[in-house]
Amino acid sequence: MEFNEVLKGVKTYEAGKPIELVVRDYGIDPKDIVKLASNENPYGCSKHVQEEVSKIISKMALYPDDSMFELKEALSKRFSLKSENIIVGAGSDQVIEFAVHAKAHNGSKVLMNSVTFAMYEIYSRQVGAEIIRTSSQEHDLEEFYALYKEHKPSIIFICTPNNPTGDALKKEALFDFLAKIDSETLVIVDGAYMEYTKYKSSEHAVEPHELIEKFSNVLYLGTFSKAYGLGGMRVGYGLASENIIDAFYKLRPPFNITTLSLKAAIVALGDEGFITRSLEGNFEQMKRFESFAKLHEIKYIQSFTNFITLCFDEQHNSSDIAFDLLKQGMIVRDISGYKINAIRVTIGTQKENDRFFELFEKLI
Amino acid sequence: MEFNEVLKGVKTYEAGKPIELVVRDYGIDPKDIVKLASNENPYGCSKHVQEEVSKIISKMALYPDDSMFELKEALSKRFSLKSENIIVGAGSDQVIEFAVHAKAHNGSKVLMNSVTFAMYEIYSRQVGAEIIRTSSQEHDLEEFYALYKEHKPSIIFICTPNNPTGDALKKEALFDFLAKIDSETLVIVDGAYMEYTKYKSSEHAVEPHELIEKFSNVLYLGTFSKAYGLGGMRVGYGLASENIIDAFYKLRPPFNITTLSLKAAIVALGDEGFITRSLEGNFEQMKRFESFAKLHEIKYIQSFTNFITLCFDEQHNSSDIAFDLLKQGMIVRDISGYKINAIRVTIGTQKENDRFFELFEKLI
Repeated sequence: MEFNEVLKGVKTYEAGKPIELVVRDYGIDPKDIVKLASNENPYGCSKHVQEEVSKIISKMALYPDDSMFELKEALSKRFSLKSENIIVGAGSDQVIEFAVHAKAHNGSKVLMNSVTFAMYEIYSRQVGAEIIRTSSQEHDLEEFYALYKEHKPSIIFICTPNNPTGDALKKEALFDFLAKIDSETLVIVDGAYMEYTKYKSSEHAVEPHELIEKFSNVLYLGTFSKAYGLGGMRVGYGLASENIIDAFYKLRPPFNITTLSLKAAIVALGDEGFITRSLEGNFEQMKRFESFAKLHEIKYIQSFTNFITLCFDEQHNSSDIAFDLLKQGMIVRDISGYKINAIRVTIGTQKENDRFFELFEKLI
Repeated sequence: MEFNEVLKGVKTYEAGKPIELVVRDYGIDPKDIVKLASNENPYGCSKHVQEEVSKIISKMALYPDDSMFELKEALSKRFSLKSENIIVGAGSDQVIEFAVHAKAHNGSKVLMNSVTFAMYEIYSRQVGAEIIRTSSQEHDLEEFYALYKEHKPSIIFICTPNNPTGDALKKEALFDFLAKIDSETLVIVDGAYMEYTKYKSSEHAVEPHELIEKFSNVLYLGTFSKAYGLGGMRVGYGLASENIIDAFYKLRPPFNITTLSLKAAIVALGDEGFITRSLEGNFEQMKRFESFAKLHEIKYIQSFTNFITLCFDEQHNSSDIAFDLLKQGMIVRDISGYKINAIRVTIGTQKENDRFFELFEKLI
């Protein structure tokens, strides 16, 4: 059977066997496997969340409240925005999907950083859009602007802090850039790791409501998958002007998050203590990575997230290092696919990081 | 901001305030509210599922195994198919979305029954497809065939048993119809309620593997939301030839079901006892609805599902009846929007049904 022509340009996201199974092939006891590959919160999730979700386990048969009334109320309080400025997705991923399907189409152009979150390209290709990328590894807003003028993209993706590199834009530079973009171009500011950035540097922190109030064409993305420790529950959100949110609602499938996810997100927003402890732990442990890297003369990218990108010189190959670690049960992300000779390592718990340093030290 | 032209043809799915909140506006104690509106399993879900999900509550921070290795293995055993014939969606809804986005586009045609599951039209309009509907309320396969010859649709939706009416096609008639459709037309056989049909009548039961082996152009849809009692967990599946599944995988977002949903679905497949009890309870209680309807001379549609559609003559108006019930805390689905003067009532537990009969009797 033939399918839509645009699908020919889409590469299937290759899942393969679970990486834990692969590691077990090397005879490693599952409890000795350490996964620092997906930027999950190493402190798990809030105890309150666990308690409250446990209480409604018997409600799995019941569809969630599809208006997400309570969650949207809680988000609107958190961000000083109206419910009408909010759409909830199955991860912020799904909001990216809404955005691309609402605004781009076969033949339109989508502008993004040379190295950035892989799903921007995948969703854009699904609608047949052409991908325009900068050449700079860090977000270079002058280059972005030049490419914007040249290509007139329908969507611009700005990922700050950026994944998989960890660097962030200064707020002022971002706002200056946004002021130069016409109001018909949708600019997506993906702040999946913004809680970390906000903790580290007010100069780099972006407040969604300032963005939304100032720019009618900007969509801010946030998620419960990182600092909130709910990666497995698939809840994210998009914040934007009503006009944008209304359009996205036309593409939102009903019941797009689970009954338990809805509860988890609502309770998670109420447990600030857990977030603070996660952020503190993250940057305390981050210092150890930085010291380790300096000691061993390994370049790293200053990170505003819960991961760190360690860059190698020609003597070392990131794929080999990641594979050597894997065989010992330490799972990190080789990012050579992004044309950087580097690995991305989630900042784990003290114990997990101890193990990483122990194994990694022998390889460099 | 302007969005893609096709969105103009899409009506936003209106969620509104949770219906429970509306009922509370009438001063009804939440514990006195009975919801027989969404065809959820009134027996909840399997105790085993609840236990196993409870055990992994602390894993909410971790992304699910995106290969869904275990779940696909379990489904492939259940249906005597290969893993390559299976795609898992966030509800079978998401598989419908994959199908429409893979096969239909602006200008293509999609054929469906006059009265059928509302999401077929919504997803089709999202890609700008034209909707062709039969005139018959029941699936009339001769009419389907005539419209197929006339319009050459890219997709045909067959919903058996049909929602929101409950009637089912005979397997033989369905297979005869499918044999006449060319292999480039995607035929979607939606069996969301098929477990109920199989329990009631082997003549109407469709075995997915027979479908898939015989027809390379047929997609079978199943779900954990109904008989398996996991409506709130959003897990469904599509079964089809590898060629179709491969195309859909290009549109599947990573981590499209939650970590807890994955566990729930795997365990649910292992608890046949729960399913059998649910099906037995359903049809035992269904008899009471049929007797009640006969006693009060109310027409009803012979149902192969977990709901029953009660049709009114001119003396009664389904919207008024549904609203009168609502004000007393009894939530059923008015289906006058489908141009049928009828209500659709989920077959509840004995106690829930007692309450329904008590209230309904006063209105007719």
